[in-house]
Amino acid sequence: MTAHDGQRVCDPTLKPDEPFRTETDSMGPIDVPARVYYGAQTARSLIHFAIGRDTMPPLLIHSFALLKKACALVNRDLGKLSAEKTDLIVQAADEIIAGKWDDQFPLRVWQTGSGTQTNMNLNEVISNRAIELAGGVIGSKTPIHPNDDVNMSQSSNDTFPTAMSIAAATAVVKDLIPAVSRLRDALEAKRVEFDGIVKIGRTHLQDATPLTLGQEFSGYVALLDRDIERLKAVLPGLMDLAIGGTAVGTGLNAHPEFAERAAAKVAELTGLPFTSHPNKFAALSAHDEFVMAAGALNTLAASLMKIANDLRWLGSGPRCGLGELNLPENEPGSSIMPGKVNPTQCEAVTMVAVQVMGNAAAIAFAGSQGNFELNVFKPVILHNFLHATTLLSDACRSFAEHCVVGLTANRERIQQHLNNSLMLVTALNQKLGYDNCAKIAKTAHHQGLTLKEAAIQLGLLTAEQFDAWVDPKAMTHP
Amino acid sequence: MTAHDGQRVCDPTLKPDEPFRTETDSMGPIDVPARVYYGAQTARSLIHFAIGRDTMPPLLIHSFALLKKACALVNRDLGKLSAEKTDLIVQAADEIIAGKWDDQFPLRVWQTGSGTQTNMNLNEVISNRAIELAGGVIGSKTPIHPNDDVNMSQSSNDTFPTAMSIAAATAVVKDLIPAVSRLRDALEAKRVEFDGIVKIGRTHLQDATPLTLGQEFSGYVALLDRDIERLKAVLPGLMDLAIGGTAVGTGLNAHPEFAERAAAKVAELTGLPFTSHPNKFAALSAHDEFVMAAGALNTLAASLMKIANDLRWLGSGPRCGLGELNLPENEPGSSIMPGKVNPTQCEAVTMVAVQVMGNAAAIAFAGSQGNFELNVFKPVILHNFLHATTLLSDACRSFAEHCVVGLTANRERIQQHLNNSLMLVTALNQKLGYDNCAKIAKTAHHQGLTLKEAAIQLGLLTAEQFDAWVDPKAMTHP
Amino acid sequence: MTAHDGQRVCDPTLKPDEPFRTETDSMGPIDVPARVYYGAQTARSLIHFAIGRDTMPPLLIHSFALLKKACALVNRDLGKLSAEKTDLIVQAADEIIAGKWDDQFPLRVWQTGSGTQTNMNLNEVISNRAIELAGGVIGSKTPIHPNDDVNMSQSSNDTFPTAMSIAAATAVVKDLIPAVSRLRDALEAKRVEFDGIVKIGRTHLQDATPLTLGQEFSGYVALLDRDIERLKAVLPGLMDLAIGGTAVGTGLNAHPEFAERAAAKVAELTGLPFTSHPNKFAALSAHDEFVMAAGALNTLAASLMKIANDLRWLGSGPRCGLGELNLPENEPGSSIMPGKVNPTQCEAVTMVAVQVMGNAAAIAFAGSQGNFELNVFKPVILHNFLHATTLLSDACRSFAEHCVVGLTANRERIQQHLNNSLMLVTALNQKLGYDNCAKIAKTAHHQGLTLKEAAIQLGLLTAEQFDAWVDPKAMTHP
Amino acid sequence: MTAHDGQRVCDPTLKPDEPFRTETDSMGPIDVPARVYYGAQTARSLIHFAIGRDTMPPLLIHSFALLKKACALVNRDLGKLSAEKTDLIVQAADEIIAGKWDDQFPLRVWQTGSGTQTNMNLNEVISNRAIELAGGVIGSKTPIHPNDDVNMSQSSNDTFPTAMSIAAATAVVKDLIPAVSRLRDALEAKRVEFDGIVKIGRTHLQDATPLTLGQEFSGYVALLDRDIERLKAVLPGLMDLAIGGTAVGTGLNAHPEFAERAAAKVAELTGLPFTSHPNKFAALSAHDEFVMAAGALNTLAASLMKIANDLRWLGSGPRCGLGELNLPENEPGSSIMPGKVNPTQCEAVTMVAVQVMGNAAAIAFAGSQGNFELNVFKPVILHNFLHATTLLSDACRSFAEHCVVGLTANRERIQQHLNNSLMLVTALNQKLGYDNCAKIAKTAHHQGLTLKEAAIQLGLLTAEQFDAWVDPKAMTHP
Repeated sequence: MTAHDGQRVCDPTLKPDEPFRTETDSMGPIDVPARVYYGAQTARSLIHFAIGRDTMPPLLIHSFALLKKACALVNRDLGKLSAEKTDLIVQAADEIIAGKWDDQFPLRVWQTGSGTQTNMNLNEVISNRAIELAGGVIGSKTPIHPNDDVNMSQSSNDTFPTAMSIAAATAVVKDLIPAVSRLRDALEAKRVEFDGIVKIGRTHLQDATPLTLGQEFSGYVALLDRDIERLKAVLPGLMDLAIGGTAVGTGLNAHPEFAERAAAKVAELTGLPFTSHPNKFAALSAHDEFVMAAGALNTLAASLMKIANDLRWLGSGPRCGLGELNLPENEPGSSIMPGKVNPTQCEAVTMVAVQVMGNAAAIAFAGSQGNFELNVFKPVILHNFLHATTLLSDACRSFAEHCVVGLTANRERIQQHLNNSLMLVTALNQKLGYDNCAKIAKTAHHQGLTLKEAAIQLGLLTAEQFDAWVDPKAMTHP
Repeated sequence: MTAHDGQRVCDPTLKPDEPFRTETDSMGPIDVPARVYYGAQTARSLIHFAIGRDTMPPLLIHSFALLKKACALVNRDLGKLSAEKTDLIVQAADEIIAGKWDDQFPLRVWQTGSGTQTNMNLNEVISNRAIELAGGVIGSKTPIHPNDDVNMSQSSNDTFPTAMSIAAATAVVKDLIPAVSRLRDALEAKRVEFDGIVKIGRTHLQDATPLTLGQEFSGYVALLDRDIERLKAVLPGLMDLAIGGTAVGTGLNAHPEFAERAAAKVAELTGLPFTSHPNKFAALSAHDEFVMAAGALNTLAASLMKIANDLRWLGSGPRCGLGELNLPENEPGSSIMPGKVNPTQCEAVTMVAVQVMGNAAAIAFAGSQGNFELNVFKPVILHNFLHATTLLSDACRSFAEHCVVGLTANRERIQQHLNNSLMLVTALNQKLGYDNCAKIAKTAHHQGLTLKEAAIQLGLLTAEQFDAWVDPKAMTHP
Repeated sequence: MTAHDGQRVCDPTLKPDEPFRTETDSMGPIDVPARVYYGAQTARSLIHFAIGRDTMPPLLIHSFALLKKACALVNRDLGKLSAEKTDLIVQAADEIIAGKWDDQFPLRVWQTGSGTQTNMNLNEVISNRAIELAGGVIGSKTPIHPNDDVNMSQSSNDTFPTAMSIAAATAVVKDLIPAVSRLRDALEAKRVEFDGIVKIGRTHLQDATPLTLGQEFSGYVALLDRDIERLKAVLPGLMDLAIGGTAVGTGLNAHPEFAERAAAKVAELTGLPFTSHPNKFAALSAHDEFVMAAGALNTLAASLMKIANDLRWLGSGPRCGLGELNLPENEPGSSIMPGKVNPTQCEAVTMVAVQVMGNAAAIAFAGSQGNFELNVFKPVILHNFLHATTLLSDACRSFAEHCVVGLTANRERIQQHLNNSLMLVTALNQKLGYDNCAKIAKTAHHQGLTLKEAAIQLGLLTAEQFDAWVDPKAMTHP
Repeated sequence: MTAHDGQRVCDPTLKPDEPFRTETDSMGPIDVPARVYYGAQTARSLIHFAIGRDTMPPLLIHSFALLKKACALVNRDLGKLSAEKTDLIVQAADEIIAGKWDDQFPLRVWQTGSGTQTNMNLNEVISNRAIELAGGVIGSKTPIHPNDDVNMSQSSNDTFPTAMSIAAATAVVKDLIPAVSRLRDALEAKRVEFDGIVKIGRTHLQDATPLTLGQEFSGYVALLDRDIERLKAVLPGLMDLAIGGTAVGTGLNAHPEFAERAAAKVAELTGLPFTSHPNKFAALSAHDEFVMAAGALNTLAASLMKIANDLRWLGSGPRCGLGELNLPENEPGSSIMPGKVNPTQCEAVTMVAVQVMGNAAAIAFAGSQGNFELNVFKPVILHNFLHATTLLSDACRSFAEHCVVGLTANRERIQQHLNNSLMLVTALNQKLGYDNCAKIAKTAHHQGLTLKEAAIQLGLLTAEQFDAWVDPKAMTHP
């Protein structure tokens, strides 16, 4: 066994002995597998950046293809690209968007910090597939040239951050917010279900005054409601597109209307309100919007950690823990010990929360490291952002479906705790005065009695009075 | 020399041999210095928590006193506190708010995680000072009792987070946003001043197409404009107050109108739009709003790191760096080497940015660690938040005043770079075609010529044509 | 109330209307308070760096003075400094080391990233105090010149990191390791005390097979034993001194023997095995040794978080938690509820752990940001490192003294948990077979019986057999 | 396009309509694909943990299989497992170790925090493959039972952390240390090559006194030398194995000699000096050794960030940057601009450094979150650790081969900077005195002259004297 687990190949789809064709770029010819659409620059990147196993996320690739389609349509509308060429580019891009060519994008996250090589990967695949659709010779750059046609009016420096924005906003809108809402709704259903259950509160992990289990869950719902609001609040920043800035933000070589039109076209194609970033210099040289959005992910992670921790602690036991909640039993517990339910969904959620905090730390660091006209930490930002949104989305769904929905209250245990608690003495303050109450509580504590037993033993009230005056339910509101 | 630098005393204001008086709490009597207003519980905390040197920030103490004043006024309005007691509490609180008694709050950040001891520190000082104002005996708890009167309708669990909110919102509104605006305006003034200066752009640290120095600064202004918007966006979360939740969020022992009235009173006293948090369970058991607000501080730190780095790199030299900007010389450079200006303001700013990222990491971690009805990492969250806002506010002001205002452009050097750059060849593409342009650029690169020299040497155009066609200014927009 | 709490003065010791004298440096004259020893460059820094409230830690100042003393002695030995001058410098430095002049060092952490201004603060105070001792005129730079004499053979670039190393190593050796050992010993005493107490184990927060309370504490001791080893392992890196590298690492203007002699002299004066860093370029331009040492602090923080969390959970209750440990009651619990012991020491420890993780994040970030011959994030690294060591040292001592020493086991509750647990059925596997055991456990679980009750009810064994065969103590070893 | 890129399937190797067989566990029957070796518990995990795309790293799977082999051999030696069963288990495990069955391990990192499901995945695949080798019926658990035979004397709670240790130590020893050494050697070769090249130093990004380019590179070599030492220093911690602790650390159900023998067998099979952790309670409930080891990875990341930043800044230009180094041109620069070399390898390295810092933050957080007898953040720790080691290893190799090896010095530019620098005036101090030197430097600075021109113009020395006295080479050592 070696640390490397056998021969690392740059393109994991490569087979030994498969035929190659020759592609060229400004550095000369290079062999690429005959069956692939990508060309010379992708092949060079595969050689020079055999770093790790993290390839560019499919969502980024699909978003990038959508951007290429949008740019082609805008270039056509501006009279710079023929209708024939546009149609070919759009057709090839649509196939990528549909996920048909995911295996044509083998490049790693760990490449040039502008994502140039992934931009060229898109240009090359679209060009060659379009050529194929047109009946041309793959690699000939005719009739669709990867740079002149597919990359027209564009630079890696504005397209890559635009694809980042499209991917990130899409992930938040279409995946994360619905998933958080799903979890929120599952908790809200439990809030309603648990509304009448009065239980002991806990502060500092110590017994405190009572509240209802429904109130406890209302806190979780409130946290997630705000997380959803926060995600919505950071979306406009993610929807401000760099496209039109070209190389350094000036828009050199792009039509004066290109930036606005391209953003509008992306909005049209996605159905999301993308806009043109009003300052392209900021849009290329910094990614503050991602740092801020990562803050919202971080906050969601904090909420989830708190909620998942509460649920697993409330479900701890079955005999020697708190045992106030029953968590669904999804997998076999120990082969010896029936009744052992490990809170595995909670554990997956807390691990995801930890990971997201690591992702957010990386994004903030990377976001601070721009120089002059370009921040060259774009791929690491995108990678960590989509890693976090995917994990959070999946974890929220899984947690809702495989844990929260199946929660039940252990009413017997909850009542037992409530009866035993010394905190209920608070309710007697106005009847007996502080000093007598303190005497009751101390007696109960030192002699191991219930409050009621202690109060009666001290002759301060009758059993009937105790039951009438000590009403935990009444203690759950002002 | 020892690591401890001599005897650590808990209360740094204590003198040897000074007289003591006896105060009591439910654990019995304890000696406190005769001259202080604080009482038994503060004294116990000084003994048990001799940890570090970080005392509760004055702004937290002042905010807490303002809350005590607000609660007293509301309790009076609700008929629970007499006008005489209210006046005494308000008078004592006002003195604290004015900064008169800062030395009466020696407790450390590193105490109980609910901040209970600081709440009692407030209750004790207000009580004893009010007693003194009323001509009573300090320590007698008459006529103003620290718990029954000063803490009426309150718990540490809702007052401490409320004081956190008041302090944090105040710091952001009254200190940080004005400071960021000050820096933004200083950069905007330079953007205008530098508007006409065309310079070489840099991407990947490598020469790229030109832009104006004003455009470069417009990017900085745009970053800070958004930082200000982000700070404003997180303010409402910071302004949602926990007060009224009392011990576990149910509002037990508080009047049903107390929460809303107390928040309104705080709003009235501060002039800021504080509101009552609609879910007190969330407000006590989590601090997601601080995690999110820390994300905005983190983003500001990222912006500042980028801007300060750019300025010190553009000012690098004087002979062997980029040298396009002259930074003001604030301190002596080396005693040997005139002209050596160290970019010390930039360095302070980048160090502050690093610190803020550490602060934000601590806040996010702490924010995730709540259990059940209480998050007991409140002081560490507050400490890191105010540490960050203070550093960011001061650094922005210092950077604006001692660096940005005094920046001048080294126009000669900027022009020299622009003339030397090979990137301007882009402008000839449409006149001579790509192949000829490439030949010009390669010839210039290999023979160490300017583009103009190379173009003329190759016979591709005349000096007059070059000057007419190559217009860097025209390359700075679409 | 404002966010700033009144007028910020740069030097917090300044009084209004106090008399000034004029000092000069290469930028000209400047007024400084007549009573202070610091001079022109310190005064300029106070004006230009009014950022935050974090002044350079006294331990750094004392370490720096010790370095100045060492350098003076070496310069004398090398024939570069007269015996008279040496004596004066040593006498002034000794006073600073003794803590006599802490108020003469008002500069903030947030200054130039090389710490140059603090180096000059040392040079100026030593110079003026030495002049005073010699009967000269303060500010005259005669007979002791701050640069030529006190800073002889030195640069800020090598002295500041050397003072950092001395301070950090001193803090670890003299403060932190003894404090961790104190806590370790307190836990070890409890391990012995709790050795015979068999209790239920918990994995995934769920009941598991038994172990002894002593075994549980042995785990804590083992963690701290290794933390101490780790701290010792990073010490040599902290003890490799930059001194002798001067401005860029070449040692220009220093005697060839200076580096080795200065390190040896520091070792002699401190009694710690400091050495001369073999590569001064690395020593000035990076602080990897601090990043690594911060990793050891981070690990200690992780250990402490785990231990403090365990103790507060085991002490949770008193009625509705786990309740297996009694924590000492240091402060009054609620005025209503006797018996409520908040685990306040645990909370302070966990807050410190969170802070240290933030400190370590800042150090790692700062450590990565060096350029060319100098890392200019030195003060922020030093600040976070000493903040962390101070908090960890104090927290370990406080936790040991105010919590661990006073821990007692709640043997009744522990036994009750052990009796109730269904996990003990494991012991019957070899007597009754897995299927029968499962039947016992399931019956107990569903009917709310003890294992013994269920086993007898099922007729699978007698009460005597159960007591003979089910021996939790025997389950606590292989 | 959706955020999810089409239907997510749990096992990415599943084909639609492929045949299933039925497996059973204690929760009953479940369908699994007929062609796979994994069984019921793996299938349940695929359903319940469809979270993200991060599957358990192959190195972890291979390490786990090696552990299963070691345990079988030890159980045989202790007389608990027959030779026939042992041979079958060993044969199946060897196939996994060889990478033959990587596609049989589809479980995600985001599962139960003990890694139980991956332990069962191993048990099931080994069992079924061994059954197949023995000619039995897959799924019959005969003759090799996944729990009774493959998992004999083991628990997930001790095997998963043991597999973590084996994987992590293997990655560091066989992948990372060689990769860092490769980079170190490449830098050392350049140190030798660049030894005689005197260049201007830079501190605060500003011109400083000279050093040789070889000295500058010696700093990089020194950083990596120590990183290698640090990696070696944390290895023993990673090599202390949890195996033998079983469920809670007591070793229940394991032979008293099992722990030592199993560790020795792992050592024998790997050739690495693994040992048995002396305190199994610590080994299961905390992962401090990983937190500390992550500190060493963090430190390496800091070193690499500094080195990669230096190289790309020294290579900045070609005309408008520092331009002292030529970086190899691996990919086409812009299609317009010959000579534009983007420092892409440096960018990949700095992005990796950022990612590793995020990984280390996640590990430290996770390491602090253990409760009682188990830390249930094991998979997230393992995932981040191997992610970091893989990225660092690959990045070091890539950086060495595709950047450092091809570096050349731009001697002309270096000499030009050296000639222009005003810092060389330092060399004249002892000939002309400070005041005259200052006059020379100021004249040069204000009139834009070289030092030599200024000195001659001022009549202070002759050209010959200047050339004789100003010797930059002599300024590069004490």
